[in-house]
Amino acid sequence: MLEVYGHGGDVESAALRYGFEPEQFTDFSANINPLGPPPGMLEALQAALPEIIRYPDPGHRALLALLAERHGVRQEAVCVGNGAAEIMALILLALAPGKVGVVQPCFSEYETLSRQFGAEVQAVYGTAERAYRAEPGQIVKLIAASDLVFLGQPNNPNGVQYDVEQLRQFAEAGERHETYIVLDEAFIDFIPPERRQSLLPELERYPHIIIVRSMTKFYAIPGLRLGYGIAHPHMAAAMRGKQVTWSVNILALRAGEISLQAGEEYETATIHAIAAERKHLSGELERLGCEVTPGEANYLLLGLPRPWTAEAMQEALGQRGVLVRSCAMYPGLDAGHIRVAVKDRAANAVLIRGMEQVIGGGGEG
Amino acid sequence: MLEVYGHGGDVESAALRYGFEPEQFTDFSANINPLGPPPGMLEALQAALPEIIRYPDPGHRALLALLAERHGVRQEAVCVGNGAAEIMALILLALAPGKVGVVQPCFSEYETLSRQFGAEVQAVYGTAERAYRAEPGQIVKLIAASDLVFLGQPNNPNGVQYDVEQLRQFAEAGERHETYIVLDEAFIDFIPPERRQSLLPELERYPHIIIVRSMTKFYAIPGLRLGYGIAHPHMAAAMRGKQVTWSVNILALRAGEISLQAGEEYETATIHAIAAERKHLSGELERLGCEVTPGEANYLLLGLPRPWTAEAMQEALGQRGVLVRSCAMYPGLDAGHIRVAVKDRAANAVLIRGMEQVIGGGGEG
Repeated sequence: MLEVYGHGGDVESAALRYGFEPEQFTDFSANINPLGPPPGMLEALQAALPEIIRYPDPGHRALLALLAERHGVRQEAVCVGNGAAEIMALILLALAPGKVGVVQPCFSEYETLSRQFGAEVQAVYGTAERAYRAEPGQIVKLIAASDLVFLGQPNNPNGVQYDVEQLRQFAEAGERHETYIVLDEAFIDFIPPERRQSLLPELERYPHIIIVRSMTKFYAIPGLRLGYGIAHPHMAAAMRGKQVTWSVNILALRAGEISLQAGEEYETATIHAIAAERKHLSGELERLGCEVTPGEANYLLLGLPRPWTAEAMQEALGQRGVLVRSCAMYPGLDAGHIRVAVKDRAANAVLIRGMEQVIGGGGEG
Repeated sequence: MLEVYGHGGDVESAALRYGFEPEQFTDFSANINPLGPPPGMLEALQAALPEIIRYPDPGHRALLALLAERHGVRQEAVCVGNGAAEIMALILLALAPGKVGVVQPCFSEYETLSRQFGAEVQAVYGTAERAYRAEPGQIVKLIAASDLVFLGQPNNPNGVQYDVEQLRQFAEAGERHETYIVLDEAFIDFIPPERRQSLLPELERYPHIIIVRSMTKFYAIPGLRLGYGIAHPHMAAAMRGKQVTWSVNILALRAGEISLQAGEEYETATIHAIAAERKHLSGELERLGCEVTPGEANYLLLGLPRPWTAEAMQEALGQRGVLVRSCAMYPGLDAGHIRVAVKDRAANAVLIRGMEQVIGGGGEG
């Protein structure tokens, strides 16, 4: 198994295992924008490099102002963090929930971080018929029985959303039971704006809702670490109160500022590219006998054609320099599930050809 | 007061206050190597910039191997962190001490982080006659009465060390009372190796000792964030167990690797420059009527000539583009104390001239 630290994108472990250099892999195990960072980002960071001899702004002031403007919220409602993972940790440290609820399958850090900071974790499960969404009534019950619930929107690894009517139902339950609900929107930027299901515009009605955003996936800067939370100003202040000074480095702050000023063209191009490539990749993978969960994000959850297991497929592709994410360890999924990122046409062709060869059924075209 | 976030080096706040650009200040409020990063560091980081599209190694493997080699310890004894501040937070999260002891005056994060994570803080105080060291018997009593004690070695802001015999006495008390002692060696690299007072070579005898090191000061990369802890492997594992995945960014990891391979010449040159400049700066500051605490680090604690207060001096110098650290908020020091970094000859001359003009007594030399 490649996920020795519990996650995809670990090209160092892959390099040790398959004898390639880290940069030689075509990596479908991490869900990063295939267009790369916004135009001019690397040049601007290069110019900013000499700034590393200074401390980062502990107040994140320039980035906070841009985020507040982008989302139409007060700066006091925003907490900038060292990746979305730190934001989740700060929520757990600020609230110290006894019982955390999760909807499996989901991002493993919800459970890992919750246990790490002393919470018990309870789960409800999605079903294949609902594209691995859980039945909404079950989620309401989970909210009633928990102090805090994590919900991926869209969820990882299946890429599906709950619609905004259902989110309101969950949020009402949260207010009724004083249960915090963390809506993890780490991948929502990849969905066309008119299709995004988000409570962000209604946050003032729901003081128990906390929205988590990542800037590392869409803007292709996972190495720098950058994320943020949006919540009631009291909650955002409580999160900042648990944050270690300077936890966000100066280049991440600059990259965030550059990203938010990169303009709509890059964002629109990314969204279009992902939509087109996801459709193409889905079709090709179905042709190879995979069951493709109809997600809306920049990754796809696949059931492999029998008798392929995730482990065997990961190994066979890894030896060819192609990395995929095994989903065998996700509660609620079986040993035959993998997740693949949606990349550009050329890279996707590498995946399709690799799987064709490995499965041995589809020939060369 | 400039320290709106509790620390020096906040050129963003200074820029808002004095109307300069952040990079225009001569900043004596942060204690960064005046030689800058090791030769070739910026070029190597520039070459590494495209790696930000990948996740950092969650296991920090390349850097861990170099650190273990440098210090002659097992990799299992080392925990790499997002700055020394994260290392301190991980210690507090791993041990959840009820009572934390500090020796004032000291780095404010010992107390801030301890309270942030739920501990009560108690203090003993250094005295002017001992260069703001505390009486060793008092420290032993503090150890007996605490679950964890922080001790700066050399201490910030006064720059003095306890000698290794005293450290052993503290460590024995720690073992006897099962009290953890965090020896913060963030600035010890600036002291000539033969003068460093460290328990690092004796760590195996003291499972309650945890050593914290910073790489941001000596290698001049505070913007990137990098530090580490060295302790018993059980303790290091407990710290890693509280760490958020990917908390150390990929450029910080690369910078650490480059720094440890930069060679002795840069390190020796830094140590010599600091020793020579500290002596020169001390003499000039005494000439201006300051009381200079005889520290060994890359900064100096000053008592200003009466009736100057730290606040008035900081303001007068700030308007001239020169930043110093007010120490008025350090418990155990009075309103007339500031801390200044030891920089290179040209920069130090800017400080001396500025203070001369402000104090108005010393003329132009």
